[in-house]
Amino acid sequence: MKNFEFKNPTKILFGKGQIEKIKSEIPADAKVLMLYGGGSIKKNGIYEQVNTALANHEVVEFGGIPANPEYAVLMKALKVIKEEKITYLLAVGGGSVIDGTKFLSAAALYKGDEPWDILTNNIPTLKGMPFGTVLTLPATGSEMNSGAVITRKETKEKLAMGGVGLFPVFSVLDPQVIRSIPHRQLANGIADAFTHVLEQYLTYPAEAYLQDRFAESILQTLIEVAPKLLEDPSDHAAASNFMWSCTMALNGLIQQGVPSDWAVHAMGHELTALYGIDHARTLAVIAPSHYKFNLESKKEKLAQYGERIWNITEGSTKEKAMAAIERTETFFNKLGIDTKLSQYTNDYNGTAELISKRFTERGWLGLGEHQNLKPKDVETIVKMAY
Amino acid sequence: MKNFEFKNPTKILFGKGQIEKIKSEIPADAKVLMLYGGGSIKKNGIYEQVNTALANHEVVEFGGIPANPEYAVLMKALKVIKEEKITYLLAVGGGSVIDGTKFLSAAALYKGDEPWDILTNNIPTLKGMPFGTVLTLPATGSEMNSGAVITRKETKEKLAMGGVGLFPVFSVLDPQVIRSIPHRQLANGIADAFTHVLEQYLTYPAEAYLQDRFAESILQTLIEVAPKLLEDPSDHAAASNFMWSCTMALNGLIQQGVPSDWAVHAMGHELTALYGIDHARTLAVIAPSHYKFNLESKKEKLAQYGERIWNITEGSTKEKAMAAIERTETFFNKLGIDTKLSQYTNDYNGTAELISKRFTERGWLGLGEHQNLKPKDVETIVKMAY
Repeated sequence: MKNFEFKNPTKILFGKGQIEKIKSEIPADAKVLMLYGGGSIKKNGIYEQVNTALANHEVVEFGGIPANPEYAVLMKALKVIKEEKITYLLAVGGGSVIDGTKFLSAAALYKGDEPWDILTNNIPTLKGMPFGTVLTLPATGSEMNSGAVITRKETKEKLAMGGVGLFPVFSVLDPQVIRSIPHRQLANGIADAFTHVLEQYLTYPAEAYLQDRFAESILQTLIEVAPKLLEDPSDHAAASNFMWSCTMALNGLIQQGVPSDWAVHAMGHELTALYGIDHARTLAVIAPSHYKFNLESKKEKLAQYGERIWNITEGSTKEKAMAAIERTETFFNKLGIDTKLSQYTNDYNGTAELISKRFTERGWLGLGEHQNLKPKDVETIVKMAY
Repeated sequence: MKNFEFKNPTKILFGKGQIEKIKSEIPADAKVLMLYGGGSIKKNGIYEQVNTALANHEVVEFGGIPANPEYAVLMKALKVIKEEKITYLLAVGGGSVIDGTKFLSAAALYKGDEPWDILTNNIPTLKGMPFGTVLTLPATGSEMNSGAVITRKETKEKLAMGGVGLFPVFSVLDPQVIRSIPHRQLANGIADAFTHVLEQYLTYPAEAYLQDRFAESILQTLIEVAPKLLEDPSDHAAASNFMWSCTMALNGLIQQGVPSDWAVHAMGHELTALYGIDHARTLAVIAPSHYKFNLESKKEKLAQYGERIWNITEGSTKEKAMAAIERTETFFNKLGIDTKLSQYTNDYNGTAELISKRFTERGWLGLGEHQNLKPKDVETIVKMAY
């Protein structure tokens, strides 16, 4: 096990009817900016619940934060924060709204001229404007971590940011919100959380037995609840275990003391930036090819994953590893998620070269847990995913 | 899954050589009271490492906190805190030193006349004097939770306390400390952590699939590392997984959204208070009888535990449950821990009645996850453990 430092101060309010508690979590004298997305919260009753809870708070609203939170839109929200002298942010939404809120938390207190620098210059946010979240779409884990990914359309860029100052003060996780999530988004959430675990688990053995088993626990739970959830999103047991699994998949716990990969995300982000493919689906496209390409360095963990998660008992380590990759692809397919780029766009020729070129231009030294994947390797992996 | 609120703000510094980092975790202008136990830290180099790290801090020392931290001793430390105008506490030790430090953290800011009232009147500590810990004996999980158990010799009482103000600000977990822990204490630590998980897991099914799997992960890891650790405490993989498992067993994570029992601890505490038997060993004495007595209400979870942890595949639910209890007792025995009260004292006659009487006098309404175990049941369980 590697050395690590771990602290996660976010307070979780989990369960039915917890939204009303935000009234005592947000200081009474705060001036709140409530941020949300396309307005689905106005149809499923969450908007009303939040407003009822905050009846005695001063609240300004900012809706319309798009999936893959867009810099230009967020800059408009930043203007509202400054003009209205906002002191507290409340994200009501999924990963995109929460990530956008994290950017605003950082940008609101940023001293520089151009907030985009936070992303391009990897400036960690040590202190941000305090914010809470009401999660409406489990998937990204953003509700209990300090990271965010922001998109800039004009440059077709999708970049990460973070820092100890960007943990939500609190997050409300009410599994009842899941009832009104469209089937497609639920499938995406499952695939997203599942891949988050894989990125932190499918590397090389690091004698972190407990972390491995925690990672496997999340995978097993997602596999167990996925069919129930897609069949009936109002199944409380399935919904609550799905929701908590998504949070635990990326709240820092399972990555302590182990190497992590994140190359699937790095490549996947490019597919979203280039073609607008749903984030989770880009991961399902890239993951199988990535694991096949890196079979040699990942075979021990892939085989362990195959044995413990998919009950693969036959064959050599490599054969078990290959079988595990196949089972993963089948799992995504059963969620209704295609795993080849050509199933999403006819215009895929040249994608591998383009992504490889972008990685080269950004000066990335290497991807993956060994940081040895070069742009040329990225090109090969993306081609394998056509 | 039940509703829950979860927040654990303790910062963990895990790994080799992390002790030196305490110098930047404790404010430079703090006046520190360093608390420790019987002085083993002076033999294994930890005392020196802590002092080196705090060379530029103002530090006062208080040694001699006994196992089962004793009120009278702690009151002497409280006097030092007040006289020396201490502003920060540092526990260097195992669960007893850390629990004693938590009492002091609470008592130092307590407004009442008699700090013992914090325990007898169940007064939660919302704000305590800040403290950090350097863990030297993994077992209790006290390094990452807000609870403590304090003993008072004159009344033969052992009572619990806690509150959101009693989380350590930071805890250093360096698995290298395990090398110098005596075999007996290591076995105790394994049994203690194992039983902590059982108390939160062996209740009734609550559709908390992820929490169940996390609990099982800790049990599996402890079972995996126990023989390696007892064979060679300098085995870094075994030591680090043991240490992290002990912390995760009682940092609040696995108890979220599920019922918990804690009757084994309630009865075990009495055996320590009456006979001075090591805490962990009292748990190993009580647990098998407790699970047998409550077989009917616990059989589903006992059978799940048997299937997933001990690979018991044959028999009815009840038969699997009984087999699982037997495997648990064997596990304790293999650690070198006796599981019958008569193996610890010849003077056990009347113990069951005495404990039952004490529970009655304290007016406890009922123990266990259903809060339906009466003093009469306690009497039966303790007798079964003779």
